[in-house]
Amino acid sequence: MKEKKRASAYFDTAFLLAFIQQQAARTEEAMRLDLESSLSGQDKMLREALHYALLQGGKRLRPVLAILSSRLCGRDDDKLYLLAAAFEYLHAGSLIHDDVIDHAENRRGKASLIKKYGMTAAILTGDWLHARSMHLIGSLAGQEGLDTVCHATRAMVDGEFLQLRYAADPAVTEEQYFSVVLRKTAGLIRSTCAIAALFGHADCEQQHALAQYGEKIGIAFQIVDDLLDYLGDEQATGKMVGNDFIEGKMTLPLIHVLAHTAGDQRAVLVQALERTPRDKDGCGMARQLMHAAESFTFSQQRACLEVEQGLAALSCFKKKTQSATRMQQESLMILEQLAYYILRRDR
Amino acid sequence: MKEKKRASAYFDTAFLLAFIQQQAARTEEAMRLDLESSLSGQDKMLREALHYALLQGGKRLRPVLAILSSRLCGRDDDKLYLLAAAFEYLHAGSLIHDDVIDHAENRRGKASLIKKYGMTAAILTGDWLHARSMHLIGSLAGQEGLDTVCHATRAMVDGEFLQLRYAADPAVTEEQYFSVVLRKTAGLIRSTCAIAALFGHADCEQQHALAQYGEKIGIAFQIVDDLLDYLGDEQATGKMVGNDFIEGKMTLPLIHVLAHTAGDQRAVLVQALERTPRDKDGCGMARQLMHAAESFTFSQQRACLEVEQGLAALSCFKKKTQSATRMQQESLMILEQLAYYILRRDR
Repeated sequence: MKEKKRASAYFDTAFLLAFIQQQAARTEEAMRLDLESSLSGQDKMLREALHYALLQGGKRLRPVLAILSSRLCGRDDDKLYLLAAAFEYLHAGSLIHDDVIDHAENRRGKASLIKKYGMTAAILTGDWLHARSMHLIGSLAGQEGLDTVCHATRAMVDGEFLQLRYAADPAVTEEQYFSVVLRKTAGLIRSTCAIAALFGHADCEQQHALAQYGEKIGIAFQIVDDLLDYLGDEQATGKMVGNDFIEGKMTLPLIHVLAHTAGDQRAVLVQALERTPRDKDGCGMARQLMHAAESFTFSQQRACLEVEQGLAALSCFKKKTQSATRMQQESLMILEQLAYYILRRDR
Repeated sequence: MKEKKRASAYFDTAFLLAFIQQQAARTEEAMRLDLESSLSGQDKMLREALHYALLQGGKRLRPVLAILSSRLCGRDDDKLYLLAAAFEYLHAGSLIHDDVIDHAENRRGKASLIKKYGMTAAILTGDWLHARSMHLIGSLAGQEGLDTVCHATRAMVDGEFLQLRYAADPAVTEEQYFSVVLRKTAGLIRSTCAIAALFGHADCEQQHALAQYGEKIGIAFQIVDDLLDYLGDEQATGKMVGNDFIEGKMTLPLIHVLAHTAGDQRAVLVQALERTPRDKDGCGMARQLMHAAESFTFSQQRACLEVEQGLAALSCFKKKTQSATRMQQESLMILEQLAYYILRRDR
């Protein structure tokens, strides 16, 4: 009976989304208050740019993960929402710098910060967010938290360099793809969960478990991102379909199709990939070949596998459900739901 | 006799430069070792870009100030050179982002990092340096050190926004100029001295004194920079003369000449300042008017005044010369020399 209840809970999307919305609102309130106090007397345009960057929507995945991880370890207080805000700052700062690098005009279906405020404002706003984020994480999670986040930030930079190196290279392997994803996306999600566990006074085993969970769902998150780039609905994602191909990003479906297509078809695909500028026709052809080679199915299955490994990592928390508080039990359940939701998201 | 000796020591430039060179070399060694360990297994291009950004010369003012401040408080060990390196990282990261913002092709007479490695590498290398710097400062100077440096970094961003707002605006006042300088240049130099004092286990009075010293010589440093931009030797500075005017930067001599020139002459100057693009002819005219209005003399005097105030702030250390070690006495003397040297520097 209990098992059945849990299984059905996995698909209770409405409850999950309501929880995310509620926690996102609390995080936004924490961001507003923090900006108010830390921007006192500072330039109007900086204030505007920060509000634009932070308070125009977003999935709030990282804050929600931070909140759940800490609550799972038994801690929930006002400071937790400031810690959650710090992870959103770090993420937003990195997105802004990414948009400068990619000359991106849109973000979440609106003008990107660089488009709206110009490059100077974009670089500086990103720097401000990074500095504030590290400050908050250092204050709230101590030296170990600071070590972890700085390490993850540097790895993120390294991942970007690797991605640059691998761009439009048909010889890139799955292994190389995962080394980029671990640095670029999964590392920061891993560190979010690990630092929130530390903040929540987790023991070593729990901290490691949450780090593992974060890493695995971070990988799944990135694979789903890769899929949405070929298969998504532009209205829902707010991103142009086919962008990754046009930028020459070696994502999982592309690596798979290159490894599972032969002869002339592969030669034409490689040609389309190596051509500059790459175009929508090349991308359309790639998508067709991916369907034929079942590259999307393969990628989806790989994402599922990562999610399962992420959930398995949380098993140490399941052993303790007898002594767990209601908040801890609820957090564990939502972390599980969230992992499955990542597989099904459409934006 | 003692007084006379000290007075002559102020002008012993050769000794000062040898000291700076020696400490710069130790800082560079610390940077090399730190890059080696923190870049292990990371991308080759990131490694190259970091070496290019950090090990191609530079005045090393911030590391030398950190070393002297800590030594003045009685601490000198290997970790001090890593702390000194952290301030150079922060400075280098900010310069790189500045060069992206200004589309600068040159830095210290060589190709800027953005020119050599492209914008993506420049933004990411700057981010890496900021993250590593905050990590090191947090590790070596604890939470208070991290607070101070993050605060200064955010103020620096705010200063850049203010400078953007004030660009080419003939109504900018001296007060507004100093509010930019305090945030943009002097704040980071202030925090360098303050954090190094903290690292050196300074008491509250000493920490405040070194912070004041840093702030004042930081202001003087910026004013001399303003002067070199109009009067410097391009060979020595590695910068194009007249750059500030062409970028519309409201520096001290320009603000002074606008306040001390009237009628047609002022109108023509304002016209040259508000024209886009601004040109070398406009800059040449501004320079002539500055000579006539004694704006350079005024600025130089103001820089001297700041240096004197900076030296006065160190008086609490002079009271204790009886109990001071030789290292502490030497550090005090060199901090004094360095302050005067800033006024006389030609690059």
